[in-house]
Amino acid sequence: MAATATNRRVPLRLAGDKPPGSVLVRNLYLSCDPYMRPKMSRPLRESYTAAFVPGSVITGYGVARVLDSSDPRLAPGDLVWGITGWEDYSVVRPPTTAFLAKISHHGGVPLSYYTGILGMPGLTAYVGFHEICAPKAGEAVFVSAASGAVGQLVGQFARLAGCRVVGSAGSAEKVELLRTRFGFHDAFNYKEEPDLAAALRRCFPEGIDIYFENVGGAMLDAVLLNMRAHGRIAVCGLISQYNLKDGEKDAVRNLSAVVAKRLRLQGFIEPDHKHLYPKYEAWVLPYIRDGTLAYVEDVAEGLESAPRALIGLFHGRNVGKQLVRVADDAEAGA
Amino acid sequence: MAATATNRRVPLRLAGDKPPGSVLVRNLYLSCDPYMRPKMSRPLRESYTAAFVPGSVITGYGVARVLDSSDPRLAPGDLVWGITGWEDYSVVRPPTTAFLAKISHHGGVPLSYYTGILGMPGLTAYVGFHEICAPKAGEAVFVSAASGAVGQLVGQFARLAGCRVVGSAGSAEKVELLRTRFGFHDAFNYKEEPDLAAALRRCFPEGIDIYFENVGGAMLDAVLLNMRAHGRIAVCGLISQYNLKDGEKDAVRNLSAVVAKRLRLQGFIEPDHKHLYPKYEAWVLPYIRDGTLAYVEDVAEGLESAPRALIGLFHGRNVGKQLVRVADDAEAGA
Repeated sequence: MAATATNRRVPLRLAGDKPPGSVLVRNLYLSCDPYMRPKMSRPLRESYTAAFVPGSVITGYGVARVLDSSDPRLAPGDLVWGITGWEDYSVVRPPTTAFLAKISHHGGVPLSYYTGILGMPGLTAYVGFHEICAPKAGEAVFVSAASGAVGQLVGQFARLAGCRVVGSAGSAEKVELLRTRFGFHDAFNYKEEPDLAAALRRCFPEGIDIYFENVGGAMLDAVLLNMRAHGRIAVCGLISQYNLKDGEKDAVRNLSAVVAKRLRLQGFIEPDHKHLYPKYEAWVLPYIRDGTLAYVEDVAEGLESAPRALIGLFHGRNVGKQLVRVADDAEAGA
Repeated sequence: MAATATNRRVPLRLAGDKPPGSVLVRNLYLSCDPYMRPKMSRPLRESYTAAFVPGSVITGYGVARVLDSSDPRLAPGDLVWGITGWEDYSVVRPPTTAFLAKISHHGGVPLSYYTGILGMPGLTAYVGFHEICAPKAGEAVFVSAASGAVGQLVGQFARLAGCRVVGSAGSAEKVELLRTRFGFHDAFNYKEEPDLAAALRRCFPEGIDIYFENVGGAMLDAVLLNMRAHGRIAVCGLISQYNLKDGEKDAVRNLSAVVAKRLRLQGFIEPDHKHLYPKYEAWVLPYIRDGTLAYVEDVAEGLESAPRALIGLFHGRNVGKQLVRVADDAEAGA
């Protein structure tokens, strides 16, 4: 990237020998996502994502304005969402540019939503619930970390699918959000429950058909005791475990339920299902525009707030989707 | 059941007011199966099978000769396999009679095989491997408890499917069986391995695509570290856990692999797939008759040996499929 430093405002451009397929962007919003934590642990055993390299810029999902491009799909002025860097400006190079998607349908919708309901977490919720769990109307659905970026959507998708849905979260404020904003039929604060299995028995006297797993550890163990026969568990994430070292992870002891109840546990990640994004976007946009779906964001201001915002995820400090506003779109003039 | 006690041999018959649909059988072979152990634990939470009732006759799979029948599907003289009692003679009543299947294709095959390769364990191996795991030629398959009733079959089915298959067992004799009789490509004695994860890394330098889970606990934890992306785990049983109390079951800590590698764990039981039995029997019988498939049984003699034989399963005393011979077929004259 070659920045021309003068007193006049001069557009930033890629250097003269533009690397083929590269894209220069002004970052507007950065997304704080739990999967970023395992990328900081070594050794990172076979995984879909490489470890972060100490000393390099952190990468993650974000929304950005294209300033210059030698990728024929993108032109200066385009808005994109996808993998970018935790910095003011990024040069995105192949193959990472394949993760940059042009934003073209966003009229009336905040751009920041492309870090969440219209981005990776949204497709994650959709794929995990609709494709992995194959819900039927009337089924009982439990969602952990239910006020987070993915959980708040799964809860609402479940309600739209005619399911009964209960969520857990880690504060009275979040539990209130689940009940009032997101339309969960019931909710509880897991930190106030001395016996998670008993809490689930109370909320699901006839058991759980679908568990959307975001936390792992003790919650998963309690859920296994409360699943119904032929239940499905979409394993989206295990945020309670990411700050624990190997060998110190929480013990799960109730896996015999997997046989007795013929349960399916299915791990999944959004990039494997990218082809479903257009279908998902077309499905979800009307629900956003007409207010059927609520969506709550937790916006940290300024790039310098990003590390603390990311760390906050693992302490439950965020209420709703955690993101960072790096710049207003108005400042991102192409 | 009305037994006429005289000095002459008089056929046993159901009492005059034959209960509708009941079947009187002479039990010939009884099957010792791991699933019988959880039926002795209370409380038995939601499961496909009810707890045993203290003071009642133990029920389980077996092979028997029909002596009398008011079930129109069965006539005196028929041979059947299915759920019967651990006793010399049983009256099988509805709905349990639905589990009695007439044996009609067994020419040249030992009747006892209907407690194993031609019965519940055989269909279990077939369904778990072919239906649940959907193997592709060239994939790497790991089987635990690999010399047991189900494991020895899965290993051979995997080889027939063009997979590379490795098994674990608990003695040098069993490991030798895996290599020589069952054609596993490699095998190890898990009791001689100080580090199960390292043993699996040695046997699967490029990882495991399919794990056929019969044991649970520490082995599952080690397998999770060694699975490849998109791997499948058919959870057939967890024999290492059945003698442990709730809360004392072995800790599984490596479930974060389920997300990172997008693994599927699927519990299953044979009764859900009974409709596949005719397909399975037609597929497997030629392989038995032409010697393609080897099959090893461990036969305890006499009803009085049945309890010790069942207990032996949980200590690995059996070599091959554990069953009990109650009577010779010749004694079972209809």
